[in-house]
Amino acid sequence: MPDTDRRTLMQTVAAVPIAMAAGGPTFAQTTEASGGAANRAPAKGVTRALAHYLVTATYNDLPANVRKEGVRTLLNWVGVAIGGSRHQTVEIAVTALSPFSGPAQASLLGRRERFDIMNAAFVNGVSSHIFDFDDTHLKTIIHPAGPVASAILALSELQPVSGRDFLNALVLGVETECRIGNAVYPNHYDVGWHITSTAGVFGSTAAVGKLLNLDEQQMVWALGLAASQPVGLRESFGSMNKSFNPGRAASNGIFASLLASKNFTSSDEMIEAKRGWANTVSTKQDYREILDDLGVRYEALLNTYKPFACGIVMHPAIDAAIQLRNENQLAADQLERVELKVNPLVLELTGKPSPHDGLEGKFSIYHAVAVALVEGAGGEKQFSDRAVNDPAVVALRGKVTPVVTPGIDPAQVDMTITLKDGRTLHRFIAHAIGSVEVPMTDKQLETTFADLADGILTPSVIKRVIEACWSIESLPSAGEIAKISVSA
Amino acid sequence: MPDTDRRTLMQTVAAVPIAMAAGGPTFAQTTEASGGAANRAPAKGVTRALAHYLVTATYNDLPANVRKEGVRTLLNWVGVAIGGSRHQTVEIAVTALSPFSGPAQASLLGRRERFDIMNAAFVNGVSSHIFDFDDTHLKTIIHPAGPVASAILALSELQPVSGRDFLNALVLGVETECRIGNAVYPNHYDVGWHITSTAGVFGSTAAVGKLLNLDEQQMVWALGLAASQPVGLRESFGSMNKSFNPGRAASNGIFASLLASKNFTSSDEMIEAKRGWANTVSTKQDYREILDDLGVRYEALLNTYKPFACGIVMHPAIDAAIQLRNENQLAADQLERVELKVNPLVLELTGKPSPHDGLEGKFSIYHAVAVALVEGAGGEKQFSDRAVNDPAVVALRGKVTPVVTPGIDPAQVDMTITLKDGRTLHRFIAHAIGSVEVPMTDKQLETTFADLADGILTPSVIKRVIEACWSIESLPSAGEIAKISVSA
Repeated sequence: MPDTDRRTLMQTVAAVPIAMAAGGPTFAQTTEASGGAANRAPAKGVTRALAHYLVTATYNDLPANVRKEGVRTLLNWVGVAIGGSRHQTVEIAVTALSPFSGPAQASLLGRRERFDIMNAAFVNGVSSHIFDFDDTHLKTIIHPAGPVASAILALSELQPVSGRDFLNALVLGVETECRIGNAVYPNHYDVGWHITSTAGVFGSTAAVGKLLNLDEQQMVWALGLAASQPVGLRESFGSMNKSFNPGRAASNGIFASLLASKNFTSSDEMIEAKRGWANTVSTKQDYREILDDLGVRYEALLNTYKPFACGIVMHPAIDAAIQLRNENQLAADQLERVELKVNPLVLELTGKPSPHDGLEGKFSIYHAVAVALVEGAGGEKQFSDRAVNDPAVVALRGKVTPVVTPGIDPAQVDMTITLKDGRTLHRFIAHAIGSVEVPMTDKQLETTFADLADGILTPSVIKRVIEACWSIESLPSAGEIAKISVSA
Repeated sequence: MPDTDRRTLMQTVAAVPIAMAAGGPTFAQTTEASGGAANRAPAKGVTRALAHYLVTATYNDLPANVRKEGVRTLLNWVGVAIGGSRHQTVEIAVTALSPFSGPAQASLLGRRERFDIMNAAFVNGVSSHIFDFDDTHLKTIIHPAGPVASAILALSELQPVSGRDFLNALVLGVETECRIGNAVYPNHYDVGWHITSTAGVFGSTAAVGKLLNLDEQQMVWALGLAASQPVGLRESFGSMNKSFNPGRAASNGIFASLLASKNFTSSDEMIEAKRGWANTVSTKQDYREILDDLGVRYEALLNTYKPFACGIVMHPAIDAAIQLRNENQLAADQLERVELKVNPLVLELTGKPSPHDGLEGKFSIYHAVAVALVEGAGGEKQFSDRAVNDPAVVALRGKVTPVVTPGIDPAQVDMTITLKDGRTLHRFIAHAIGSVEVPMTDKQLETTFADLADGILTPSVIKRVIEACWSIESLPSAGEIAKISVSA
């Protein structure tokens, strides 16, 4: 995101300065360590200052727009977790772990089994990443909700947690993981770490620690135990191991905070010490990203939600196709030709003209545009084996012509549809739906949710869960959301 | 260890070549990747070749001296795990995890509680590292037994595992973690990782996977899930978090292999891929260390056991003191003066003249020599608050004079004791007891074990456990060792 956009966002945030921990770092001090491995002078007090913020920040401190974005993050996460809950990856995890789970403390969303909170958090974290359809903090490519929400929703079934406390913990968890991610991104990601889960452990730890009411020292230790358990390498992308990562980040975070709550000790400087986390896992360390404007600038406001169940590079074209289809009530047999001017990346990443199954469909701009025109959507169902082999979609994809065009950036598309009656329809997309600039509407989030949960929960239960998520701030018990999000 | 020593050791190992996996790497291929981050051409087939070895290697393939060293590793580990079992660190872990444990599948050594196998493995792994008294692979400073033995002993209470299969799995686990450690040491350790637990996850995964009878593909995936869960940073040294690390490596390894046993997938090249484990966690990758002479050269033969409950730099002096005391039946009041010529490291690391408690005693060469002369030992009891404040020991430590002397290397000491009757006694130690060159005898291992277990198990139970460890190869059920190693 350009800095100008970020500044605009920042201006919408109420300026609520917080008191830093006594003896906390100045940025002159922390900046010393930003030079990477070649200049590893340790920073001072980063872990403690973060812990101080976490244990003192309250729901009442959250600006209204941050609260709202937190609620949207929750709704979107519950939907993707339910949506993934019947996938083979989840079936295997449940089968493997059932004989070892502790008491039936927490629900597996979209299913019937109940596990202890750590195993439940693991499974829900796996489910929510199955379709790669979860929320995205575009600045770091972290999917923030998975590690955090999986952990605290499970805990909220074990102990009383008000909806407001839940939302505060969710925002603080997202804040923690995204800020720590910012501090080491991109070097940390480039070298091979799956940042969603390496930073995610800190997010789940912070959020769980908040709900366990850790004191500052315990929170410092909890963050230290989190730092000791990074999860995930990018090499696993394309296998079940990718979904494993946010799930394990969730359960590791609970493990860390549970131990710290009984005074299991760690270092006081695990994030910033010379041989601490940031220096060990990255050649870049910018501690200002962790501490700057805590309680003023919120990473939660940078969260985005996917409208379409495929790589983001196809989103502008799908968006254009759906807009033109709906506005003109187009039927597939009216169409003569679909031309789209695209950035080179589109054909590099999604240039497969004749996909054979749903997964291949996710790498075919031809299929994506055709199915969007036929069905008016780009959800998981539009990237199924059925959709990819639907005769109407197959016929139409032969009429889709992407043209690499200078000046079109990856966020853009320029689409012209020629109808058999000779008319042409045109749409230029500068920012697709689901971007920070054109966020998904609440209604669109509901539609995605319902689409994902369809066939897993009944329509009346889906409606009830959506309503419960929207009203999280007035719920006496946040665990209620988990309890109703299960299969009958 | 100098290469000459290693060669000598190697010559004692029967040369039993094993067939490599079809299509496995040549060393010319794997060596391409040894140049570090600047030259990250990926190696091929490392993970698969290791998996192939692990799933095909049998107890019958193990040379007699490797079997013997495996048994010694087991005995030593059971002793240190029992010894640490009542420490506050363990009490906290048990209290924190009790409400979340699954079925009572496995014993906590030295205690009464029973946890599910993953939580039991965690606690036993923590216990066994409490006193830093566990075994050491000096080439990497890995403590090999903790992650591996904790994991497979717990599993052996859940499913039938013969003593021979247990010993084979233990050796294979040690082999896996030490070889992977060799491949990235010292860069990996230098940057900040606690190599015992980062490499240890692979060891526990391999050993558990062997006992779960994984096929080659499942073992590949299990190693991938292990690579996704490195544990431990050196910054945590000095806190409970240090003992946390081998415990979590043990439970993570069970977690990885359980999932893989149900076909939870990962990458096929998680160790060696461009964005795999070795490239992500180290700037050095020498894959020959992993694959060279599998089944011929055994890292298990390089394992050593500590005679004394303190840093290795004081071992030569304690060894000399005990030898002179016992040979001459010295009493403290006979001694006029104790001079020792030492390497500079001794005073740098352990130069505290007047320690106040047991922990400070571990950093005082004055105390270590005095207590060894008074009590004839250097165990955990000799580094207790009691021993450090014992008047006879305090008086004697004032008579200990270490002198930094050129030409004395850190493995050596030159001690001269002057008696009040004018006699002088002299001893030069080239290699202390517990080194690879002067290994602990079986009898000494038993003494250490009994000393550690004293006050936790009854003398008759201690005797029974020691006998069970020595006879592991004829035990029908290895889990028996855990079942008898608990408090009445």
